[in-house]
Amino acid sequence: MSSLATASLPAHEPLRLIPVSDPDDPRIADYRDVRERDLVGRRGLFMAEGEVVLRLLTAHGGRDLHSVLVSQASLPRIADALDLLPRNVPVHVAGQAVMDAIVGFHIHRGILAVGRARPQVPAPELLASLPERALVVALQGIANHDNMGGIFRNAAAFGADAVLLDSACCDPLYRKAIRVSVGASLIVPTARAGTTAEMMEAIAAAGFDLVALSPSGRERLSDIVPGGRQAALFGTEGPGLPPEVLASTRTISIPMAASFDSLNVATTSGIVLHHLSRTGG
Amino acid sequence: MSSLATASLPAHEPLRLIPVSDPDDPRIADYRDVRERDLVGRRGLFMAEGEVVLRLLTAHGGRDLHSVLVSQASLPRIADALDLLPRNVPVHVAGQAVMDAIVGFHIHRGILAVGRARPQVPAPELLASLPERALVVALQGIANHDNMGGIFRNAAAFGADAVLLDSACCDPLYRKAIRVSVGASLIVPTARAGTTAEMMEAIAAAGFDLVALSPSGRERLSDIVPGGRQAALFGTEGPGLPPEVLASTRTISIPMAASFDSLNVATTSGIVLHHLSRTGG
Repeated sequence: MSSLATASLPAHEPLRLIPVSDPDDPRIADYRDVRERDLVGRRGLFMAEGEVVLRLLTAHGGRDLHSVLVSQASLPRIADALDLLPRNVPVHVAGQAVMDAIVGFHIHRGILAVGRARPQVPAPELLASLPERALVVALQGIANHDNMGGIFRNAAAFGADAVLLDSACCDPLYRKAIRVSVGASLIVPTARAGTTAEMMEAIAAAGFDLVALSPSGRERLSDIVPGGRQAALFGTEGPGLPPEVLASTRTISIPMAASFDSLNVATTSGIVLHHLSRTGG
Repeated sequence: MSSLATASLPAHEPLRLIPVSDPDDPRIADYRDVRERDLVGRRGLFMAEGEVVLRLLTAHGGRDLHSVLVSQASLPRIADALDLLPRNVPVHVAGQAVMDAIVGFHIHRGILAVGRARPQVPAPELLASLPERALVVALQGIANHDNMGGIFRNAAAFGADAVLLDSACCDPLYRKAIRVSVGASLIVPTARAGTTAEMMEAIAAAGFDLVALSPSGRERLSDIVPGGRQAALFGTEGPGLPPEVLASTRTISIPMAASFDSLNVATTSGIVLHHLSRTGG
């Protein structure tokens, strides 16, 4: 997509920087009181932070971005990436003290961007669009933004084709989830899929083999042969998947020490995706 | 060890509860201003939080514990575990408001315990004490307490025999690291092993085969056959292991998507330990 953006713009048009010296400048209103906006929500906008995430977004064409705010000190190390942005994306530059006053805390990373979340296609449509060999992550009630971000990071690292979320899952575009995902939650195709039952029906209807992770799983992860259309279902932190889901699904476990059978769900997703992925493992 | 504690005490001696109604009560000084103490350090003491961690500690005999502080509301659900404690460990009980005033924030878990970190044996001694089939985790410069806790949780879940830390690693007994480890950092045998070079020498001298994790690793994780005495070395967040370490060691990588080769180090440890563990995977 980076090539698309480059093709639509003369490569030599210089990057225009907009200096900001007043924390109350209305042009940077989206960046004001970052943590309070985390709580009240950003109405379809997301906030991305840091060099690695912004590089990922610009490498994907930056077409979702509304604007960027960087500190003067951070500008030199990110300028080459900003140069890839479409020229209609304003790049604001502020001194560290002004930037801190805008966001409401000391923002040592010095790099922020606001974008618009892509409209999601319905889960059945997303699943139908995937290739004959495909790997899907399905999530039931993941409530913690660290875990959500970690799962998306793993999904991107192991080349999962999509992540489906049931209606009880938290928002993968919450600021902290984006940060923990290192931006993956902005690039991996995602759909809300209704209730867990509706999500499972959509997965089955699209011809995916579903495995559900549980410490009480009847098979071991290593028993599963990667291939075809596969989906792995992970349950909420603590209680895990409900009994009725486990009763109606092929269940797998990860063998653990008898005295300490406790894995974080994001780590579990990494282990499962490493086994099922097509990245060559 | 739970049986040891039981054997040394009459099982029927009732649990003595010490009511606390004054936040300034000197008997609960160790619990005062919890977050400030995180910063200044606890001089060899650790603070454990929550039901799961306290159950783990009591199941291990509770011999490292100095005292416990629980809220009245939390007492009923933890009383059976507290009953396993040696009777010389005082159990303080406070109302939620008093407990909040003691610790300095709203402590919704309502369960805290202070203990003394066990004296560490030197790394060579710890390694020599391990069986002929053994799995060791070696850490270079892990700086983030979440990652440290996550690695210990994985070490416990996959039955690793020990964790070695170089001198640049953060403290696995920091309050947050204990919490994220779900208590594992209190029970997995651990040693500080000096510089990374000294740590690697101790591992080699004890007859362990060492593999170092790196995205540029020359072999794949799946090429490694589990067995014998093995150690896996993980490097600091971001830069990873330094070139001189990678040049002198057998290096392995986890295959990832070309466009997103980024895994969290705790997740990486989970994937590696799942492959190498003796828990039956």
